[in-house]
Amino acid sequence: MSAPTYIINGSFNHHITPLDRGFSYGDGVFRTMKMRGGLPLNWPLHYQKLVADCAAIGIVCPSAELLMRDFEQLFTLQDADKQAENVAKIVITRGEGERGYQPPAVTSPTRVVIKTSLPQYLAMYDEAGVTLTLCQTRLSAQGKLAGVKHLNRLENVLARMEWRDEAIFDGLLLDQHHHVIECTMSNVFMRVGNTLFTPDLSQCGVAGVTRQCVLNVAHVLNLKPEITTFTFEDVLKADEVMICNSLFGCYQVTRMLDQTWPMQSMARSFKQLLAEQSVNA
Amino acid sequence: MSAPTYIINGSFNHHITPLDRGFSYGDGVFRTMKMRGGLPLNWPLHYQKLVADCAAIGIVCPSAELLMRDFEQLFTLQDADKQAENVAKIVITRGEGERGYQPPAVTSPTRVVIKTSLPQYLAMYDEAGVTLTLCQTRLSAQGKLAGVKHLNRLENVLARMEWRDEAIFDGLLLDQHHHVIECTMSNVFMRVGNTLFTPDLSQCGVAGVTRQCVLNVAHVLNLKPEITTFTFEDVLKADEVMICNSLFGCYQVTRMLDQTWPMQSMARSFKQLLAEQSVNA
Repeated sequence: MSAPTYIINGSFNHHITPLDRGFSYGDGVFRTMKMRGGLPLNWPLHYQKLVADCAAIGIVCPSAELLMRDFEQLFTLQDADKQAENVAKIVITRGEGERGYQPPAVTSPTRVVIKTSLPQYLAMYDEAGVTLTLCQTRLSAQGKLAGVKHLNRLENVLARMEWRDEAIFDGLLLDQHHHVIECTMSNVFMRVGNTLFTPDLSQCGVAGVTRQCVLNVAHVLNLKPEITTFTFEDVLKADEVMICNSLFGCYQVTRMLDQTWPMQSMARSFKQLLAEQSVNA
Repeated sequence: MSAPTYIINGSFNHHITPLDRGFSYGDGVFRTMKMRGGLPLNWPLHYQKLVADCAAIGIVCPSAELLMRDFEQLFTLQDADKQAENVAKIVITRGEGERGYQPPAVTSPTRVVIKTSLPQYLAMYDEAGVTLTLCQTRLSAQGKLAGVKHLNRLENVLARMEWRDEAIFDGLLLDQHHHVIECTMSNVFMRVGNTLFTPDLSQCGVAGVTRQCVLNVAHVLNLKPEITTFTFEDVLKADEVMICNSLFGCYQVTRMLDQTWPMQSMARSFKQLLAEQSVNA
C-alpha cells in the first residue's frame, strides 16, 4: 500500500492554504472513483454528478479536460499496467476567501485529485456477504444539500466512530424520523419479492453513482426499482439486502444485529452487470 | 487592510495537505476572537469553548500554552501598539487521515491560527442599529453537533449567499420547524418587557461566547434571561431585538423586512457592560 499522492490545481507543487473555503467551511464537493490502467471507471457518470453537485452549491465545476489532464499526470505515467487498479478522489472547493461566510465576488475553485490504493476488499465478501451495524447517529434533513456529496461530512465521521469491530463492514444510517437513508460509505437496497426498494434521498443522504447504475439495470434482473421511504424494521423483514458504492460494487448484507440472511445471488448479479456495462474511458 | 497571515502547527512554513480531515470532511472546530495589543479578548471563555467543541467531536484540544505561543509569534511582535485591534481565528482539525470516515487509530490534531484585520464595522451601527433579512435556508437539526462551532458550515454559506445588498447586516435563520435559531454570523436576542429571550440551541445553531456573556450580565440591566423556543412572528412583535458576536459586540436590530424598531439603549448598554468585563489576557 503506497502513500497517497495528489495534485492541486494541476501542479504537484501547490498547497492548500487555511484560507481555502473547503478547509474553513467544508465549502465544496468530492467524488471517489475506481481507476483502471490510469483511467476512471464510469467517468461520464462521475463527471456529470460532480458538475451537478458543484451547481447545487453555486460552484462552477472545472472542465472535464482539466481533470483528465490531472489524471494523466497523477496516474497514467506511473500505472502503465492496463489492469492496475487504484482510487481517485476529486475535491472541488469554492476556492480561497478571507473570512466570513459570503463568498468573494470572484472565486477561483480549488481542484484537487488524490491517488490512493484500492482498499483490500476481501474476496470473502462476494462469497459470504457483509455485516452491518445500526448507527445511533441520525442524519439531519437539509433539502438544499440532500443527495449532494459535499464536504460537510461530520455526521458520517461521528457515525463511523461508533464501531471499531472489524467484522462490521458498514453502518446503517437513519434520519430523524427513523427512516433508512444509507450507510456511512454506501447506498442501500432491499428486495421484497420482485421489487427493489431504495430510500428516497430528497432530504438527506448522498445519491451515489453506483446507486443510479443499479436502478438503471434492475429491470435486467426482472426487478422493479422503487424509491420510497421505509424503516429499519422493514429492512430486517426484507428478502435480500444489498449495499453498493463505486469502489466495491455491490455486496449482499448477510447479517445486521441479530438478523441474518442466507447468501443469495442478487448482489453478485448486479456486480457483474455493472462491471460489464462500466466504461473505462 | 493587510492580507491574512497564519501559522500552522506553530510554524510559518507548514502547509495544509488535502489529506487533512478538516479539508476532507470539515472534521474540526474553529473560533474567531478579537485581539487587542496582540492578546485575545476573553481568552478563558474562548479556550473553554474550544476545548468543549473539540470534545464534542472527539478531538483532544491542543494546550492553551501552545496557542498562546502561536499568538505571540503571529501577533505580539508585529503589534506593539497596545491598542491595535485585529482578529484571530483558531482552527483545530482531527489531523491527517488517508481516506475513509474512520479516524486513524492515532491522530495528531492540526492547529491553525489566522490573523486578519478587524472588519470596518461602521460606527453608525451603534447609533442607528442594523437591518436583518430573513433567510430562506433552514438550519437542520443535529443534536450531536448543536451548539458546536464545527467546520461543517455549508448552511451558513448558502444562507449568506441569499443576499448581496450591503444595507443588510445579517440574516435571521430558522430551523425546519420555523423556530428562530440565530443569524448567519451572530446570536440573537429579543426583549419583551423585562424578559430577554434567546433561542434554545439544543438541536442546531452555535452557542457563542458573547451570547453566554450577555446571558451572564442580563441581571445588571434588570433583565430576566430566558432560553426558549420562539418564532419569527414573535421577533417582529418584540420590544427590542439585538444580535451579538465576539467581533462587534452587540447591535440593536432596527429593521427586519417591513418591521422597524425605534433606536433604544439595550444593545449599547450590553456592549458597554461586556467591554468593561472583558479580560485582555
